[in-house]
Amino acid sequence: MLLDSGLVMMTDSRTNAGVDSISTYRKLHIYDGGDDRIVAVATAGNLSVTQGALHLMAEGLPSHDEGGEPDTIWNAPTMYRVAHAFGRALKTAHDEVKASLAEAKVPSSASLLVGGRVGDKPLALYLVYSPGNFIECHSDSPFLQIGETKYGKPILVRSLDYYSTSLEVAVKLGLISMDSTIRSNLSVGAPIDMFVIPSDTARMPVHHRIEADEPYYRSVSDTWSERLIEAHNAIPNPPYF
Amino acid sequence: MLLDSGLVMMTDSRTNAGVDSISTYRKLHIYDGGDDRIVAVATAGNLSVTQGALHLMAEGLPSHDEGGEPDTIWNAPTMYRVAHAFGRALKTAHDEVKASLAEAKVPSSASLLVGGRVGDKPLALYLVYSPGNFIECHSDSPFLQIGETKYGKPILVRSLDYYSTSLEVAVKLGLISMDSTIRSNLSVGAPIDMFVIPSDTARMPVHHRIEADEPYYRSVSDTWSERLIEAHNAIPNPPYF
Repeated sequence: MLLDSGLVMMTDSRTNAGVDSISTYRKLHIYDGGDDRIVAVATAGNLSVTQGALHLMAEGLPSHDEGGEPDTIWNAPTMYRVAHAFGRALKTAHDEVKASLAEAKVPSSASLLVGGRVGDKPLALYLVYSPGNFIECHSDSPFLQIGETKYGKPILVRSLDYYSTSLEVAVKLGLISMDSTIRSNLSVGAPIDMFVIPSDTARMPVHHRIEADEPYYRSVSDTWSERLIEAHNAIPNPPYF
Repeated sequence: MLLDSGLVMMTDSRTNAGVDSISTYRKLHIYDGGDDRIVAVATAGNLSVTQGALHLMAEGLPSHDEGGEPDTIWNAPTMYRVAHAFGRALKTAHDEVKASLAEAKVPSSASLLVGGRVGDKPLALYLVYSPGNFIECHSDSPFLQIGETKYGKPILVRSLDYYSTSLEVAVKLGLISMDSTIRSNLSVGAPIDMFVIPSDTARMPVHHRIEADEPYYRSVSDTWSERLIEAHNAIPNPPYF
């Protein structure tokens, strides 16, 4: 979620290779360069491909400028160039395995959300696809999703507003969206990793892992269920009978 | 939705062959045999395949019993056999075109929801897949979905209860589920077709088409958005900041 108030990134942490092979992997990665830059990357899709992409980025990519230093997160001049570099890394990792995975009928596609700030420029958020192309989040639709996107989308469509949604409310809505997804699909599960960068640079970023049994998260889930029932009770019965 | 109180079936009516080729097609078909039987069929997936399946059923399928009358909706002895016949019809229609559609890279899969009552037996609801196999809805999870299922699932998961949900509330929840889907995906659109068969045979079935600008439907959509905001306002802000 990219709002006037800041950037909120959230991931679940479940991966699976079939329902009998489920494990917990961190899907939210923070690159903290202090005052110079801060970048967060969320991953979805084939785990070997996203791990490969992050590894290539850590090594540094062949420089765009002939004979130059390798391109890294740390020397990219803008968030656009950070996203572009992640696109190159993801495409390289994907290209290496896509033919053999297709032969084994294993899905190879993967995607990334790349958000953050370089220098004193505004916060930005990008969605990077396996072929290396990427799109930027804008205020008309102030969120991007990857992975199991559909169950949790309606609450965001109805409730997020770029100008008026605070970071606190955005985190709450993100947890409701995640919880709706977790209740609908076994392949999505807690803990939920959360990273928040306020637009106001006087406020510190917040990094937190939310376990399934954390009292606040449980209260969001339970209260939301109760309130939904109140909400549809408040709507009159249909006139069709 | 198959509840103690009765059966509720709902479909949107949008089909598309790409975003530049969108049209309105009825996806809910009623076979009304008066006191003897009543069957409703909802369709999703490749339109030529589902139309083919309904056409084959209307013609009658080769009899299960050698030399017998063709199998139809009208002579099946149970809802299970009605669903089984629709499975044969769907598989036949699918088998005829799946190879050539695969060659043209056009998805050929399709599915049906088949609900209703034969004689004085209880209401039943089945989900029929392209290969002709089918599953039955049971009280632990009192609904089945086909087509664009994910956006509208969370509200049903949280709110539907086989024993306590009335038909009126089920229709309201179905409209909320449909509306969440319509707001999230261009390929789903009003009018919404609705068919309700009460368990109580003294009550008449209700068949209604709900247009996008119908006042009750508009009020469900608007009130739901307002109440969702109240619902998340009622949850305290997260303690992570």
